[in-house]
Amino acid sequence: MKRLIACAMKQEECDLVIRNVRLLNLFTGDTEEGDLAIADGKIVGLGKDYPAKKEIDAHGAYALPGFIDSHIHVESTMLSPEEFALLACAHGTTGIVADPHELTNVCGIAGAEYLAEAFARIRKGEISPLDVWLQLPSCVPATPFETSGAVIDGRETARELERDCFHGLGEMMNYPAVIAGEEDCLRKLEGAEKLKKVTDGHAPGVTGDALNAYACGGIKTDHECLNAQECREKLARGMYVMLRNGSSAHNVEENSKAINAYNYRRFLLCSDDKNAHDLSVCGHMDDALRKLVACGVPAAEAVAAATLNPAECYGLKGKGALAPSYDADIVLAEDLVSFRVRAVFKAGEEIARDGKALFSCEKKYLPDTVRDTVKIKPCRAEDFRLRLKGDRAHAMRMLPHNLITKNEIVSVQRTADDVVVKGTDLLKLAVVERHFASGNIGLGLVAGYGLHGGAIGISVAHDSHNLVILGDDNADMARVAALLERVGGGMALVCGGEEKVFPLDIAGLMSSASAEVISEKTAEISRRAKEMGVRDGYEPFMSLAFLALPVIPELKLTDKGLFDVVNFRLTEIDA
Amino acid sequence: MKRLIACAMKQEECDLVIRNVRLLNLFTGDTEEGDLAIADGKIVGLGKDYPAKKEIDAHGAYALPGFIDSHIHVESTMLSPEEFALLACAHGTTGIVADPHELTNVCGIAGAEYLAEAFARIRKGEISPLDVWLQLPSCVPATPFETSGAVIDGRETARELERDCFHGLGEMMNYPAVIAGEEDCLRKLEGAEKLKKVTDGHAPGVTGDALNAYACGGIKTDHECLNAQECREKLARGMYVMLRNGSSAHNVEENSKAINAYNYRRFLLCSDDKNAHDLSVCGHMDDALRKLVACGVPAAEAVAAATLNPAECYGLKGKGALAPSYDADIVLAEDLVSFRVRAVFKAGEEIARDGKALFSCEKKYLPDTVRDTVKIKPCRAEDFRLRLKGDRAHAMRMLPHNLITKNEIVSVQRTADDVVVKGTDLLKLAVVERHFASGNIGLGLVAGYGLHGGAIGISVAHDSHNLVILGDDNADMARVAALLERVGGGMALVCGGEEKVFPLDIAGLMSSASAEVISEKTAEISRRAKEMGVRDGYEPFMSLAFLALPVIPELKLTDKGLFDVVNFRLTEIDA
Repeated sequence: MKRLIACAMKQEECDLVIRNVRLLNLFTGDTEEGDLAIADGKIVGLGKDYPAKKEIDAHGAYALPGFIDSHIHVESTMLSPEEFALLACAHGTTGIVADPHELTNVCGIAGAEYLAEAFARIRKGEISPLDVWLQLPSCVPATPFETSGAVIDGRETARELERDCFHGLGEMMNYPAVIAGEEDCLRKLEGAEKLKKVTDGHAPGVTGDALNAYACGGIKTDHECLNAQECREKLARGMYVMLRNGSSAHNVEENSKAINAYNYRRFLLCSDDKNAHDLSVCGHMDDALRKLVACGVPAAEAVAAATLNPAECYGLKGKGALAPSYDADIVLAEDLVSFRVRAVFKAGEEIARDGKALFSCEKKYLPDTVRDTVKIKPCRAEDFRLRLKGDRAHAMRMLPHNLITKNEIVSVQRTADDVVVKGTDLLKLAVVERHFASGNIGLGLVAGYGLHGGAIGISVAHDSHNLVILGDDNADMARVAALLERVGGGMALVCGGEEKVFPLDIAGLMSSASAEVISEKTAEISRRAKEMGVRDGYEPFMSLAFLALPVIPELKLTDKGLFDVVNFRLTEIDA
Repeated sequence: MKRLIACAMKQEECDLVIRNVRLLNLFTGDTEEGDLAIADGKIVGLGKDYPAKKEIDAHGAYALPGFIDSHIHVESTMLSPEEFALLACAHGTTGIVADPHELTNVCGIAGAEYLAEAFARIRKGEISPLDVWLQLPSCVPATPFETSGAVIDGRETARELERDCFHGLGEMMNYPAVIAGEEDCLRKLEGAEKLKKVTDGHAPGVTGDALNAYACGGIKTDHECLNAQECREKLARGMYVMLRNGSSAHNVEENSKAINAYNYRRFLLCSDDKNAHDLSVCGHMDDALRKLVACGVPAAEAVAAATLNPAECYGLKGKGALAPSYDADIVLAEDLVSFRVRAVFKAGEEIARDGKALFSCEKKYLPDTVRDTVKIKPCRAEDFRLRLKGDRAHAMRMLPHNLITKNEIVSVQRTADDVVVKGTDLLKLAVVERHFASGNIGLGLVAGYGLHGGAIGISVAHDSHNLVILGDDNADMARVAALLERVGGGMALVCGGEEKVFPLDIAGLMSSASAEVISEKTAEISRRAKEMGVRDGYEPFMSLAFLALPVIPELKLTDKGLFDVVNFRLTEIDA
């Protein structure tokens, strides 16, 4: 503190002075011109004529606080934490509130610990380029109708929350349980409340009395508002509203209509789920800001949603603003329209310039806890036989560009012990339990996907991440399962004599390869799957990842069998 | 939590439903109509048709969060904590951030502990009507040029701050020490920063580099802005700006000019110093809100400065808003102009109605630590003799309605061993050390006050609270000192054969009497002093209380002697 004060008084040399900035001041909304002085990783002042060990001329660029993503599942990028950090930092991100929901559903607490440790090991000299505040996943498993890699109950959640590594409690997706006052669920919420840790929410369409009840659970954020009216109601009940700029969920534009000069301090920008391609090509929070400003939200209000507001919501001391004693996490942006990032500083150290990170992550952290996580009971072609009692069955009808399936009754051709799918519009879907080699295989029928002549499969399958395998040939489906086990999870394809696989060696969710390799290899295997006849409107592998998610209507499949989401129960295929 | 949720869902009876409120929602700025439902001391929802054990009809009154005073020295009211709570709560205050600077300068940490304990003992059933967040005084003593009752250095401050009873660090008045980087001072600030506790500021007129340096001390608030421009600069450097509605300092009107729709969340309302009369007659935060709205600040922005903003600034969980899971601390106000308080609820319990508290504090907490605190070495008339070398002396020239004195050179008549003041415009001022009976007496001359024929004195004397005695008769001055010691401090007057005293039995600062008695008795003794010739523009006793404060220009007196504030050093009376 002594040195900061001496530097502010120009009695000592600052470590760095960034000259000629336009500082967008988020406390006043004004733009101030001057030199930004930095010592010991902190801002010491905005002024003129600071003596400095090092000077950089910003040539009038806007100085903004480092961007904070209020809610992200890093797993959705399929990137390792290291590769994620390289990309995110290059786009101006210096902090994320991460909810390792997928890793934890596969690896338990060890999955969250892995993420924390992997990020902690990324350094540029003394500096950690990316701050990560970890929210302990609250829904492991997401539902009792599937087998996840771990079960973390209310008591364990409350105990784990006491650890410093968990900043708060991750999104409480099980809103029916909150509203119903289910005890195990409330133990988690009460645990967070007792520790004064922030609990994130997830309550699509929950309004009125149910919203009051949900908010009584001490839940402080929501990223699932469907429209501006829902945003306003959630704001009114004390929740921060997140505007989501993900790869599939885009509600910045619609929900920005709820922002005004009075309430802007209660909005946050987040990614939630974003793939590597979008992160690399479109950007991260810089992209979200660009969109928000394009919607007509004043820049000073928009930037607050990616900086000061998350710092306040999550109690991130020293973050979210550029003022004396705040951390020198700084983005130099070309303007407040494109938000093109010229340079990024973390704790006063330049970590990215012109879209390139200035640190490297050659060596990836890959502990045993997240490797070789696919364990299945050896399966044969016969295990994929589907024995029906009659000729009519419930099939999942796929809809292009949509995660919803229709529960459609179809006529089927049968043999003595199987359904014939070859040469029909139907395919077989299998969800193979892959955490405990239990041999659980859920079987179902899918209509409208268009693949033929083999099978494809993936180990990313929300939220329990069992193997999801789709095909018209039992033997090929069994080979896909075996392939995925062999490489520790990933994407696999079998078509006649051809076998292709792209490993997701981190928990079967993410790849330790470089972002370029991931991008190239996933594009290649997807293209090959597409050639097997997958219709337009489906991303061949990622479409599968949601067929086992038993919270999205109407009909889904888990390792325990076919699931009727509308009636929220396991059901029969026979119609 | 289970019950809150069940009540929100109308499955269980709420404890209380306040029907027909207009809720001023501080998250949205909107006014919502409905019934406010309360269970277990918390808000569970705003809606209709809640089953309830008890109902109150608000008849359309505005429901606001309980008011929070962001910065107050309770001692300045001269009321005991109990009497203060009765008055403040009746005006809608349900929480205060208290800085027991005066008590601590007299009694050390025990003074702060007394305040905490006295407030904690005030109950209405299970309920504490007034929340008190204690800021540990940072300047004990305020300067090294006086003798206070305690010395709390940097190391002790850092240690004490670790206690839960101290919410943060009190106003750092010694801004020159911060800016100079003095080590003992920085130990205090670093102690607070390490614990993530909020440090309050006090930096009148500090701007530019010096303000950057001060803010590098991690200081997060300021209540000394002289004008809107200073407010804006302090906001820009990350400080919350307090608008002060005290008895002497009124800067709500001037500083409200700095408030706008973008920055309103960074303003706080406070009292700082307020006497019992103003508190009783004008009000507390209700009065501040009335004034702020009269300045043209929209009600939703104004109310935030007395509720949500302090809750955020000081991290007061569950406070500052009326939303599910927030504490049911509620003010029902007639309108958003007069802010006339109809009823006040704390944790869902009605604690005041129509300006009267609904709880009582018959029995006052009066521990030995704050009683009988005036200890002087017995003094005689001779001790007040002022021996000068020549005929010209520095006198403190009083200015009506002003705490500043002018350093004036006057001609004096002398005897062999004293100055003659009887029959002149001069009076003798003495500051008698009263904590350790050291026998320290500082002597000086005062011009322009107008008293004659005796002496008056008071044990409230910022910030060290020694005895300040003014008179034209040495024997009467000695009798005043003896009187004040006998009653444990207070206000005393000796005029010929007449003796009058009003005891301030709590540390010589506050009275354990009822507010009515205090009001009547202080008015009576002040009237009597006025009759001794005190000119208009001076409140006879309280004017003395600032003559020993060595941080207000130009000339002041401490127990160590005459103090030249402009050059910040002890000085000679001889000119």
